[in-house]
Amino acid sequence: MKTVLKGLAKTVTIDTDGPITIIGESINPTRRKKLTGAFTERVYDYVLELADSQIQAGADVLDINVGVPGIDEPAVMREVVTAVSNHVGIPLCLDSTDHKALAAGLEVAPGRPLVNSVNGEEKSLSAILPVVQEHKVPVIGLVIDDDGISMEPEKRLAVAAKIIERAGKLGIPVEDIVIDPLAMAVSADHTAGQITLRTIELIHSEFGVNMTLGASNVSFGLPERQIVNQAFMALVAQMGVSCPITNPVHLTCTIRATDLILGRDEYSMRYIKHYRKLQKAK
Amino acid sequence: MKTVLKGLAKTVTIDTDGPITIIGESINPTRRKKLTGAFTERVYDYVLELADSQIQAGADVLDINVGVPGIDEPAVMREVVTAVSNHVGIPLCLDSTDHKALAAGLEVAPGRPLVNSVNGEEKSLSAILPVVQEHKVPVIGLVIDDDGISMEPEKRLAVAAKIIERAGKLGIPVEDIVIDPLAMAVSADHTAGQITLRTIELIHSEFGVNMTLGASNVSFGLPERQIVNQAFMALVAQMGVSCPITNPVHLTCTIRATDLILGRDEYSMRYIKHYRKLQKAK
Repeated sequence: MKTVLKGLAKTVTIDTDGPITIIGESINPTRRKKLTGAFTERVYDYVLELADSQIQAGADVLDINVGVPGIDEPAVMREVVTAVSNHVGIPLCLDSTDHKALAAGLEVAPGRPLVNSVNGEEKSLSAILPVVQEHKVPVIGLVIDDDGISMEPEKRLAVAAKIIERAGKLGIPVEDIVIDPLAMAVSADHTAGQITLRTIELIHSEFGVNMTLGASNVSFGLPERQIVNQAFMALVAQMGVSCPITNPVHLTCTIRATDLILGRDEYSMRYIKHYRKLQKAK
Repeated sequence: MKTVLKGLAKTVTIDTDGPITIIGESINPTRRKKLTGAFTERVYDYVLELADSQIQAGADVLDINVGVPGIDEPAVMREVVTAVSNHVGIPLCLDSTDHKALAAGLEVAPGRPLVNSVNGEEKSLSAILPVVQEHKVPVIGLVIDDDGISMEPEKRLAVAAKIIERAGKLGIPVEDIVIDPLAMAVSADHTAGQITLRTIELIHSEFGVNMTLGASNVSFGLPERQIVNQAFMALVAQMGVSCPITNPVHLTCTIRATDLILGRDEYSMRYIKHYRKLQKAK
């Protein structure tokens, strides 16, 4: 299945048959003081630096989250989306829980951005899906509902089904739904990784949709997180995650290697091209 | 399924349900000048150093390959197996294509070593299996036959079936057969990784046996081989490889992380224990 995103200068097709599309996670103020300052002061040079460094490292799409408590999120989202899309040609992923901030971003974003996100809660479905429908854009669906996050893969599958069904009723096609099966920390629950992998497997076989994942939660609280994240990235890609939200500086090599092993990189072209780019940057 | 190995002081159970058993690959003279010299001169201090460093890095079993052209392989195998098993308590994996060298090693190895290997060629089956039967030990079966290495997973599966069947006729039980599904370089053929993964999947579902893999061939000819090997290790473990032959210095962290993600490490105990051991060694 293919989900088409468009930026000002570039079309990116997320494809369940790969290669993997990398959504750069770094424009997000969570635990980033400097970025929080940029959003508060509404001066965006640092945001553009983060955009450039992620693209250099291999990002195909840039996530934009401006969620700092107390700021005028729709206004800042509008400004940041304008600034970033005047600066880069790749598609954006507009990331907020506030439907007004998403709508504000969608008004100024060029092409066909990805919306991040709706979930299975009634209030989220009824607030976000109409905005998505209006702008005819694809949306990420998190498998959370009014009962919270289930640790049963079948229940997460049921939430994915609910989101797909509700979107369908508004005329949003299934190829415009990208499911996030959710990754929790294995340090808190040693079955958490298995649950995510099984959820991915179920959703892949039931709906065949594209899937994303915030793939660094899994290693929260552990030493040498990078090693855990690398292994997890390979495993989730094998099961069906096609567009992880991740730090390209740390994980692009592993992602290219995984594509190569999974038979999606003839003559190792993409892998070697990325390696040469990194060598050149050094 | 469980394959039981015994050393002088330690029993190791290779288990398809994990955690992963690490067979240390480093006592093998291929591209190792210093080790080639040790075997030629029949002075084994360096061999014992390699044994220690691999155990320190996480090896559960040590592969012993003394195959230097022109040496008296049975005699050197006997001496090296004696020296190593007087020095370490873990089980050994006796690695040779020469049935006389394997028989010589088996005469002096304590406990229950693993034999590496038989394959589906008639001359291998008829030379190696009787030795394995006589010593009542487990054996690795490579999925090569008189037609060479097939690039069709179903044909590799058929070779595995043939080895299991022929062993069975001699009274060697299926739990004492550890299949090597073979990994080839993805730089030479971009479908090679896929073929190995599919072979593992087929053998796992058909026979449920333990599987090993020389997991570093896959990255031959590529830059940043470590990244490819790490991703591959996670992927093959997910599909069913339970006892890879690898360099524990480079890959134990990834193997522990993979077990953790696959739900085989309650409270992250093994992962963190390994991390602390590494910190202490620093």
